[in-house]
Amino acid sequence: MMSASGASTVGSQAFHLESWSRIRLDQVERALEQWITTETSVEVGHAAPAALVEAMRYSVLDGGKRLRPLLVLAAHEAVAGTPGSAAALRAACAVELIHAYSLVHDDMPCMDNDILRRGKPTVHVRFGEASALLAGDALQALAFELLTPEDASVDGVTQARLCNLLARAAGSAGMAGGQAIDLASVGHTLTEDELREMHQLKTGALLQGSVLMGAHCGQPDSVALTALRDYGAAIGLAFQVVDDILDVTADSSTLGKTAGKDADNDKPTYVSLMGLARSQTYAQDLLAQAQQALQRSGLKNTLALAALADMVVNRAN
Amino acid sequence: MMSASGASTVGSQAFHLESWSRIRLDQVERALEQWITTETSVEVGHAAPAALVEAMRYSVLDGGKRLRPLLVLAAHEAVAGTPGSAAALRAACAVELIHAYSLVHDDMPCMDNDILRRGKPTVHVRFGEASALLAGDALQALAFELLTPEDASVDGVTQARLCNLLARAAGSAGMAGGQAIDLASVGHTLTEDELREMHQLKTGALLQGSVLMGAHCGQPDSVALTALRDYGAAIGLAFQVVDDILDVTADSSTLGKTAGKDADNDKPTYVSLMGLARSQTYAQDLLAQAQQALQRSGLKNTLALAALADMVVNRAN
Repeated sequence: MMSASGASTVGSQAFHLESWSRIRLDQVERALEQWITTETSVEVGHAAPAALVEAMRYSVLDGGKRLRPLLVLAAHEAVAGTPGSAAALRAACAVELIHAYSLVHDDMPCMDNDILRRGKPTVHVRFGEASALLAGDALQALAFELLTPEDASVDGVTQARLCNLLARAAGSAGMAGGQAIDLASVGHTLTEDELREMHQLKTGALLQGSVLMGAHCGQPDSVALTALRDYGAAIGLAFQVVDDILDVTADSSTLGKTAGKDADNDKPTYVSLMGLARSQTYAQDLLAQAQQALQRSGLKNTLALAALADMVVNRAN
Repeated sequence: MMSASGASTVGSQAFHLESWSRIRLDQVERALEQWITTETSVEVGHAAPAALVEAMRYSVLDGGKRLRPLLVLAAHEAVAGTPGSAAALRAACAVELIHAYSLVHDDMPCMDNDILRRGKPTVHVRFGEASALLAGDALQALAFELLTPEDASVDGVTQARLCNLLARAAGSAGMAGGQAIDLASVGHTLTEDELREMHQLKTGALLQGSVLMGAHCGQPDSVALTALRDYGAAIGLAFQVVDDILDVTADSSTLGKTAGKDADNDKPTYVSLMGLARSQTYAQDLLAQAQQALQRSGLKNTLALAALADMVVNRAN
């Protein structure tokens, strides 16, 4: 359970998610700041145009909860036993770049046509539609570039494995596929199974992918890997159920975006399908599933993962 | 020189590019046909939605000259001495997916607003703008998925190296960066240096990247690698110079797209900058540079690369 101070008690140990997160978010911010640049590429010998990089930085830096990077780092620490790994930091930044590009493209007029994101004008409003399109495209490419450093800081097999996990989480059987189902579902009635399938792809795949990428930065055994996959699936789904609940129960200022938007847009949600009370029970069930998965992982260092699951389900925005 | 029969004599040997290409294009088509599917992802356990995959297949299959895949395969054969490699076939398909996604996004209303491509309605005309956006995004992710097979057919170090080369060729200091410069340049006067920089990123980076990816599927020594990088840079630039020449000299039916379009759109071109005659001389100079690079590569099996360079410069469309 999460207390007002941000301290969570999981099992018998106290764990302070906020202080755990603060150090790691600082590292992630510094790394993103450093890696999204116009810096000349050594081999090709060209610099990225400043205007494009400005749009990329605008869409990534100083914003968001950074849930996906935190999942990467927590999963890595659970498997490796200790924090700090070049691979995990790169993976943390790469998943955030994919998340950021998806928001940039999702906000465009041909998609959700949003003009505000985290209280700022969206990228296409600020830089124009064409620049938003290209900035998103370039952010996706940069994610894979970050995963494949040419120094010896990450071994080649791990680099390849991380690229594979990220590509599948982002692609047609992952995030992009889920967005396509979402697009086709507006105004249609979905069954609970169809709604779950859509969200498992749209949001769940990258959240689960973040957990798996973090795990693969260590040397997970098959028991741990299976358990972390289940954990990732549970929190991926829980994230969306809670999003749907907050869309109904929170006001816009707490949420930081327009409340009630999904219902207004005639989008299918868990609340519209199963009602508010059953949605809330379902979210708590998924949290319990996530915690049980951690218990059977055989991993000792799962307090951060447990606290993140708790945060996903019991957050206010 | 290229004869009417498609046979080219480079040095003292006859080389038939058409028959060399036919076999390889068949392999590439079959592989693309097989790899762009709704097939359930083993690990994540989800299928891609059929409608999205249909848009992806529409944009990739049965179309285009496949210059980039041929460059990958020719560079691999030059380095390895023999054809046939799981890595090279995957790299060939991956560069084509990146090329295809760039066309899908480039044709969208917020970019070039083209309604026809290879005689067919463009993806956004056929499937809608949002689907075109997502299909392009998913094609980019699929390119990296293809480069990272989970079987043992390609070693991890090679997978990682190919992902890095592709990410940089496609990203902000490559293709996407070049498109951003192009976007900002409409209606402006560019110097020859600025025009070259734009094209080196927009078109050259992926063409050169194709050559380097093919080379890295073998075991290139540093002499060969430097020479192939120079070869790639020369044909990358030549490709665009010839494009600009054909925009002026060819009619629309030969070209398969609207002739004179760049001039109408007030886009800077080599012809507008240096005139037709000097542009033609420049293209032949670049061809000579490409051939000289092959001669100093120390590689024996460069006939296909030589013939492809010849084709790039002396093509009619």
